[in-house]
Amino acid sequence: MADRPNHMDPEEFRQAGYQAVDWVADYMARLGDLPVMADVEPGHIRGKLPAEPPTRGEDFADVLADLDRVILPGLTHWQAPGMYGYFPANTSGPAALGELISASLGAHGAMWTTGPSVTELEQHMLDWLVTALGLPEAFRGNGVITDGASSSTLCAILAARAKAGGNEKLDQMVAYTSDQAHYSIAKGLRVAGIADSRIRPIATTPDYAMRADHLAYEIVKDRNDGLIPFFVGTTVGTTSTTAIDPIPELAWVASNFDAWIHVDAAFAGTAALCPEMRFLNAGLEDVDSYLFNPHKWMLTNLDCSVFYVADRADLLNAMAVEAEYLSEGTAATSTTDSEHETVDYRDWTVALGRRFRALKLWFVIRHYGTEGLRAHVRRHIAWASDLANWVEADDRFELVAPQVLSLVCFRHTDGDEAGRRIMDTVNRSGRAFMSHTTLDGRFILRVAIGSPQTERHHIEELWNLIQSAA
Amino acid sequence: MADRPNHMDPEEFRQAGYQAVDWVADYMARLGDLPVMADVEPGHIRGKLPAEPPTRGEDFADVLADLDRVILPGLTHWQAPGMYGYFPANTSGPAALGELISASLGAHGAMWTTGPSVTELEQHMLDWLVTALGLPEAFRGNGVITDGASSSTLCAILAARAKAGGNEKLDQMVAYTSDQAHYSIAKGLRVAGIADSRIRPIATTPDYAMRADHLAYEIVKDRNDGLIPFFVGTTVGTTSTTAIDPIPELAWVASNFDAWIHVDAAFAGTAALCPEMRFLNAGLEDVDSYLFNPHKWMLTNLDCSVFYVADRADLLNAMAVEAEYLSEGTAATSTTDSEHETVDYRDWTVALGRRFRALKLWFVIRHYGTEGLRAHVRRHIAWASDLANWVEADDRFELVAPQVLSLVCFRHTDGDEAGRRIMDTVNRSGRAFMSHTTLDGRFILRVAIGSPQTERHHIEELWNLIQSAA
Repeated sequence: MADRPNHMDPEEFRQAGYQAVDWVADYMARLGDLPVMADVEPGHIRGKLPAEPPTRGEDFADVLADLDRVILPGLTHWQAPGMYGYFPANTSGPAALGELISASLGAHGAMWTTGPSVTELEQHMLDWLVTALGLPEAFRGNGVITDGASSSTLCAILAARAKAGGNEKLDQMVAYTSDQAHYSIAKGLRVAGIADSRIRPIATTPDYAMRADHLAYEIVKDRNDGLIPFFVGTTVGTTSTTAIDPIPELAWVASNFDAWIHVDAAFAGTAALCPEMRFLNAGLEDVDSYLFNPHKWMLTNLDCSVFYVADRADLLNAMAVEAEYLSEGTAATSTTDSEHETVDYRDWTVALGRRFRALKLWFVIRHYGTEGLRAHVRRHIAWASDLANWVEADDRFELVAPQVLSLVCFRHTDGDEAGRRIMDTVNRSGRAFMSHTTLDGRFILRVAIGSPQTERHHIEELWNLIQSAA
Repeated sequence: MADRPNHMDPEEFRQAGYQAVDWVADYMARLGDLPVMADVEPGHIRGKLPAEPPTRGEDFADVLADLDRVILPGLTHWQAPGMYGYFPANTSGPAALGELISASLGAHGAMWTTGPSVTELEQHMLDWLVTALGLPEAFRGNGVITDGASSSTLCAILAARAKAGGNEKLDQMVAYTSDQAHYSIAKGLRVAGIADSRIRPIATTPDYAMRADHLAYEIVKDRNDGLIPFFVGTTVGTTSTTAIDPIPELAWVASNFDAWIHVDAAFAGTAALCPEMRFLNAGLEDVDSYLFNPHKWMLTNLDCSVFYVADRADLLNAMAVEAEYLSEGTAATSTTDSEHETVDYRDWTVALGRRFRALKLWFVIRHYGTEGLRAHVRRHIAWASDLANWVEADDRFELVAPQVLSLVCFRHTDGDEAGRRIMDTVNRSGRAFMSHTTLDGRFILRVAIGSPQTERHHIEELWNLIQSAA
């Protein structure tokens, strides 16, 4: 029996680390040749794994070998050049190396004192993003990183709930969102204790954007019934079609009734890096909270969602719980002076344990520079525009929603069955992977361009695949 | 202006990756010489960073150089051999390399179809842990990874709420926990919409364990008042003193009133790797849910909390929300057969975006083997026992709680001020970092042994520091 754990010492780590880096570099190099979609039966991966954990340690090289043998065949390759499913979940070299170093430091960002650099780099990166994206100045100093849009949206809902009177008034609170909103809004509301019967779906325009007049009508009705309209969940860039809700009008309605207005720009937000796309930010100066996910389109690997509030007071009221054992290890490090206020991020979100995510964001922004990040986004939008033109020029297909960002939504004029067959054929080719959505009861093909390795010729190849399948 | 993003190609990544690995190996080698606690004023780190993000990309070597120049001085080194604050947050070489590869794959575990290996390895690792820790067989197949105890506990509360009738009955629900429970239980209840006035603090024994008779009394009182006792939040290894609630008795009480009973073993759970510590698992066969955090003591870096339910039905009822655009890309891969049921983990937790955390757990368990992990835990418990003996033999100090795991809680007999002075002196030495708690209104010193680089001579050095300061 081992009486000492076989910790990797620095030199063992160096050798294992080189092996891991080599594995990743080789994976990056062959990514374009792997079938994009996993083609395995349920249970296939587990069937290759021993039922019991090993009692004695194994060689790192053997573990790496099993990555190829066991794991890769069962992966859908999200970074492949032919990945067009869902929304992208970009990673990049600097992001992955930031994650490596963050994991190696094992630093903790619950409070300023548990690792001042963790907190201050996070604050700084979120302020950099205010500049880079042209976000409202009110967001400066009021941002925090979470693990995803679901968490960011939940934070918004909890802050809104606190502002509207807290849990004692929960049974009077009503929330509003469109049927095109991400399901994380409905899920967050349910988590926060809002009964499904008090979530109002708001009608959308033919372009799938929320209607401000319908919102006003529903809120007035609820107010007349003695209820508290407390939360309006809006979207810039919906999941199905990247529809853009009219934030200025919705914010005007919400503010007139003192309801919290939250904007989910999980995917689309990154595009505001480009000045010509800043129309995406219209109305943000009038909203209470905003999120976007650098882990979607900004080359910062999952997980990294950023969340801003215009005023942090309600968020802190919603989250802060006191506990003595979390007090500072020494009084001197907890000094707050008027010039440099410290924040304890555990009081900004649901999570207490917070790893050092700002590090990878710092690595990414410095490696690419804002112009490099803009170039990344612009290529995808341009190619989506090309694809949309090709679809429009082909009588067999019709665009079903405006192409504004890097998503193209279309259908085969022969109907749903033809669309399903095309998607299935394309996905089974191994060269590309696309997903679908349903709009007005119809089956819609979705092509979301966004992988770092995608080049224009890949889009041409995809279009050829689609045409052959049609 | 850049018209192409400067993506790291595989060879650039290889070179940058070697540099990052070298940086980490060197950091590991000098960790024992760095001051454990950050000694900076608020704003110090931000003051070294440019106010604006760079427009053009920078060299990776420059970014790494700034790690040393800007970030390190403001870090409290959680992996340092002299780190005894809070609870440990272990990282290890194999964990960090697992994180690197996970970040590089950029795979997604929301559903089985988004990456079958992500889901199946997660299921498999959680079953391995059932074996390794001797957990109840009912947990097999019913585990999921979350980002932390706060999230795991929230999942438990939401499942309990669903079982007790959902949000429509929220205003009748009452929850129970001890004043020694982690604040994430109170926070989770608040998040879930439970008013503070319906959270009952349950009295504890002189050893700070929850009293089952008091729980029974409070539940009966609430039942008689027409309320719904829906959730009992218990702890195995409390944060202040690692007190162990009497789970068998508490579970008996809870089950008699159909209340959900949840066990938070965030820190202590890892110790059940050792057969001689399996008393920690007493009563788990009668509970509804259980969590422990491999990211605390099991060499798997933050974040990695594991959460088990005895029956997944209520959890799925609480979490599942339908959305068409999340349907499978192709019908064939979503087949569920009776032998190999697939699970979609997005329906098990609040988060939708789920990175491939099981990979690092697989790397860790295979690198160390269960015997290596046991050896890691046993050394810390043995040294804590040594330290507790030294404290007891010194008239100036008194132990204030039983030392059962790797935490030693004690105070100076001269009073709180003497204790504060000792902590401050030790922490300012740069050689060690300890934290404190408050018990019965008194200031208590906490030494939590658990860093991978800690050796017995470091504990001796710490004791010398404490004695000199006394």
